[in-house]
Order: sequence, then structure tokens, then C-alpha cells
Amino acid sequence: MADARYQVAAIGNAIVDVLVHCEDSLPAQLGFAKGVMTLIGDDQVEGIYNALPPALECSGGSAANTIVGVAQLGLKTAYLGKIRDDQLGRVFRHDIQKSGVHFPTPYALSGPATAQCFVLVTPDAQRTMLTYLGACVNFGPEDVDEEVIAQAAITYLEGYLFDPPQAKQAFRKAAKAAHDSGRKVALSLSDPFCVGRHREEFLDLIAGHVDILFANEEELTALYQTTSFDGAVSKVRSQVEIAAVTRGSLGSVVATAEKIIPVLADPVAEVVDTTGAGDLYAAGFLAGLGQGRDLDTCAIMGGIAAGEVISHLGARPATDLALLVKSKL
Amino acid sequence: MADARYQVAAIGNAIVDVLVHCEDSLPAQLGFAKGVMTLIGDDQVEGIYNALPPALECSGGSAANTIVGVAQLGLKTAYLGKIRDDQLGRVFRHDIQKSGVHFPTPYALSGPATAQCFVLVTPDAQRTMLTYLGACVNFGPEDVDEEVIAQAAITYLEGYLFDPPQAKQAFRKAAKAAHDSGRKVALSLSDPFCVGRHREEFLDLIAGHVDILFANEEELTALYQTTSFDGAVSKVRSQVEIAAVTRGSLGSVVATAEKIIPVLADPVAEVVDTTGAGDLYAAGFLAGLGQGRDLDTCAIMGGIAAGEVISHLGARPATDLALLVKSKL
Repeated sequence: MADARYQVAAIGNAIVDVLVHCEDSLPAQLGFAKGVMTLIGDDQVEGIYNALPPALECSGGSAANTIVGVAQLGLKTAYLGKIRDDQLGRVFRHDIQKSGVHFPTPYALSGPATAQCFVLVTPDAQRTMLTYLGACVNFGPEDVDEEVIAQAAITYLEGYLFDPPQAKQAFRKAAKAAHDSGRKVALSLSDPFCVGRHREEFLDLIAGHVDILFANEEELTALYQTTSFDGAVSKVRSQVEIAAVTRGSLGSVVATAEKIIPVLADPVAEVVDTTGAGDLYAAGFLAGLGQGRDLDTCAIMGGIAAGEVISHLGARPATDLALLVKSKL
Repeated sequence: MADARYQVAAIGNAIVDVLVHCEDSLPAQLGFAKGVMTLIGDDQVEGIYNALPPALECSGGSAANTIVGVAQLGLKTAYLGKIRDDQLGRVFRHDIQKSGVHFPTPYALSGPATAQCFVLVTPDAQRTMLTYLGACVNFGPEDVDEEVIAQAAITYLEGYLFDPPQAKQAFRKAAKAAHDSGRKVALSLSDPFCVGRHREEFLDLIAGHVDILFANEEELTALYQTTSFDGAVSKVRSQVEIAAVTRGSLGSVVATAEKIIPVLADPVAEVVDTTGAGDLYAAGFLAGLGQGRDLDTCAIMGGIAAGEVISHLGARPATDLALLVKSKL
């Protein structure tokens, strides 16, 4: 196996977040479940935006947030995801490239606008996400740059890719390209409802193609349709090489065939906005793996990166992650 | 004089800010003076953006920031300013309307894109602004909704309007419409270099049309080409009814023909980003005037609003200004 040009490559829905602080009642008032991600159609975008208070715009996208965190931790990274050649598309491209991530996917020159996610942050620091997939629906197998994947030690895929229909094929193509080159495939389950929508396919993919699985407790128990966390963990460790499962303020559990490692969460003075917590946990963990650290340290690094991102508004790091990890390890 | 439908109306350059934290050396590296506003052409936008780290997007514009602050303080407000029908234009419109401001100016359907300002925030919390005026260059007299102006107790104009050529005419038309209806005209000098570019015209306008003047120390001394703050204050009080002059951490001075009132700055735990300090001072002050408060209280309200906006990134209030003022007065 050739040396990896990239330590981590990621594929995901390329999204610009529209962040608002709002009352606890707003998600329900708009008819949406609080705390999860719901897809919205282009006929809903204007009406929802109209119901929101003044906002901040900031690049987002689950795997994009992760790869930016990995890049900030000093690793060589690449990202694939679809944007339109519009103002928000240029914002997305600028932010990810200026984070040091190689981003070769060309602009879509026609079709839907760059994807947007309305992120409603309630006073309890929970986030409710309403996603308009826009240009992401046209991300397909032809956008999987096999040369990039073949040169990446780990290819990280977000579960949300199972929502836009063509992305699913891209997903499988990327997993195959990675394994054909002797590389690893990592997957994040993304959201319990996303797991619910695509459960059989996820199980299939995990059994056949995933080496490293990221999930939170709700996603993992939804995947195995069980209420027992321990039961879900014991299932997953027989299916993947490494499973890293987050449990909010309880920290995380890393499970392999050999052992189960519980790791405490990094203490946070004030939780402001939980958006990106899972994304940045994965970033810290993957960076640790890429640096050849032991799994305990990977999980601690995940906790540090997650702790940083939940202490401010937005899903991308606001402080120097590399310095932060160095000061805490 | 009929009762005012709006307590304050504002006219300004309608801009979306692109906010970055950067090294102290970046403004000079890019060839720009630190701490001031420089206009950039459309041929410079991409090159500068490319040299910036990842950013946040947020509605801005000097008078727009002010009027949003006034609206948040519970007053009836209107705003006039030009945006294109593009993604950033929709962001600008959403944010100002959702702040409770009446914003009747229609989208420009052709011509340059919505204006953008690159705001470079250095570790000393200073901001350097690089402004691409975009659609603002097409704001002209025809965009001055005389009905709105005639119905506003105070019309507030930003000095930056003297940069796009047609806006100058709009400026004069608005001032005339206000006075013809027995209303007041307020002006902010905006920036010492803006004052330098248009000094004679500012002097002319102030002598003939301005009742309430906002400036900081540098702008006022640039206007009267003096190094003496006291000398500049004594000049301005003979020319306008009320002059409110800010002096950074020293607070502000309110000068009228009868008296000079020095007011301390509101103490701020940590100054994060001074962008919008002057804009929000004007907001607090104008809101006080609109509520019929004495000038001391107006200046204190200005200081409270300015103190809020410099304690976080961005030029629009991030906390409930009305509650904040209530708790501090």
C-alpha cells in the first residue's frame, strides 16, 4: 500500500448553516421535531426562513465540519461535496479551502442552489436542523474522485449521504475505491431518524464496508432496534474494527473486538450550542488515529474538539484546535 | 406637524459583512490601513477574499446596524438601502425585517451584487473594513421614499453615503424632505478618511441640513482640521443642535449651544471586536431621543448599546438590548 497523500478524506453534504437563537417553542410551532435533522423542500425554505429571527451564516455540513477539524489538527485532508456557483457556494468553498482542506469537486453550473441548513438553537443549547439539500441532490458517483480516495488512509462518510438518492451510489463507490487500495472506511450514523429512514441499507453497508463507525447512543440503539446501550455496543463490536460511540455529557465509549474503553467528556464551562458536537468528536478521534495514537487518546482528543465546538455558536472550531489539544493532552 | 409614524428612519449602504479573526499583520500585508474603512473595486474582491481565513457572514452596514439597534430598543423604525436580488441580498433583507424595521427599498434586478464588507478583526479587537459597494452604487434619489422620510421624527444618514456618487443626491433629497415636514436630520461622520474625502461637502451639509451630528474624536477633528478636541467641539456646537462625540474607552461628550455633557463609557469585561461601536452608540442615543429622555440618559444608552456590541464578534446586537438598557439605567 502506497503512502497516503491524505490522512483523511471526507464525503458529505456541502451545506451553509443559517444559525439562529430562538425560543424553545419555535421548532414545534414550525411543525418540526426538536433536536434532530429534518429535510425540507424548496417550497418550504422561504416560509421557514420568514419565521426565523435575524441569523448568522456560517459554513457547515456534518463531514465538512469534521474534515475542517481534522485539518486544523494538522493532518492532510480532502473533501468531496456538491455546491452551486452561487454566493453561498463560494462561501462554502472559501471556508473549507482556507481551512487547509483539498476540495476538488467543481461547482454545479445549473440546478438547485447551494444547500442550506436552518439551525435553530434553543436556550437549552440544543439544535434543531432543517435542511434544504439543494445542489447536494446532484452529488453522484461521477463526483467521487477515486484518485483522492485511493490516496487517503481513511475515507470518512456521513450517514446523511443516504438521503440524497444519488449520493448512496457515490457512497458505495467510494467505499469500494478505498478498500481496493487497502484503505479504511469510516462512517458516521449522523442522526437517529436518518438511521430509521435507511436502517437496512446502513446495516448492509456496515457489515460489508465499514471499518470505523461513529455514532451517538440514540443512533446506535436505533440501528440495532434495542433499548440496551450495552447490547448495541456488543453487536457493533462484532461488525466493525472500531466503534466510537458518544454519550453527550457522559463522554464516549470506544469498542473493538478486544476491549471496551469508556472515556470521560472534556469539561465545558458553558454549553452554548451543541451543533457539531458529533462532527468534532469524529474530527479529534480521526486526527488521533491519523497520528497513530492509541484509542484512549483518540477518544480524549474527540472529547476536547467536541468540547470546543459546543462552547460557542456554530459547528466549526472558533479557536486553534491544535493548540487546545496540545494544552490538554 | 403630524405625529411620526416612525421615530427613526435611516438611509445607508446596505452591506453584508464577512467577518474574520486575523493576525495583526494581515491588513498591512494586503496593503490596507488598519482600523479604517477602505473602498475596494470588484476586481479586488476575489483576491482579498482568497487571502482571508474562514469567515462568518452577518448583515452589516453602518446605518443598518444603528436602525436595528433602535428597533430592538422598541422604537418604530424604517430603513432605505440598495441590495441585489441575490443570496446575500436576501440575507440582508431577512435580518433587517426580522429585527422589526420597515424596509421598503425593492431589490435591484440587475447590476452589481449585494455589497460586502470584509471585516478583519485583529487580536487587539480593532477592525479594518474593506468594502465592495456593489448594488449600493445604484442607490439614488429615486430610492428616497419621501413618504417614509416625511413620517419619521428623525432621519439618520450615514456619512459613508457620500462615497457612492448618486447617494449624495439621495442624501440631500432626504434631508430636504425631512425638513420640509418639520422633522430632524441626523448624520454620522462614519470614518476619518471618509471625512477627508468629502470634507467640504460635509461642512456644507452640516451647516445647512444637519440637526444632530454623531462623530468620534478622529472624525470631528478631521472635519475641522484641528488637533484640538475642545476646539472641534466648540465649533460643532455652534453648527448643530446636538453633537454626540464618542471617545472610545473615555466615553462620550454631548454638546449643545447651552452645555457640554461628558458621559463615561459603559464598562465592558472583554472587548472582542469594536465593529459597530459607533453604530450602536448612535442607536442607543437615538432611541433615547425618540423616547424623550434627557441628553445625559441618551448618551448613557448609547454607551450601553456600544458596550454590548464590542463584547462579541459582529456589528449587530447579540443580546436583548431593551432588557440590557432596562437593567442598567
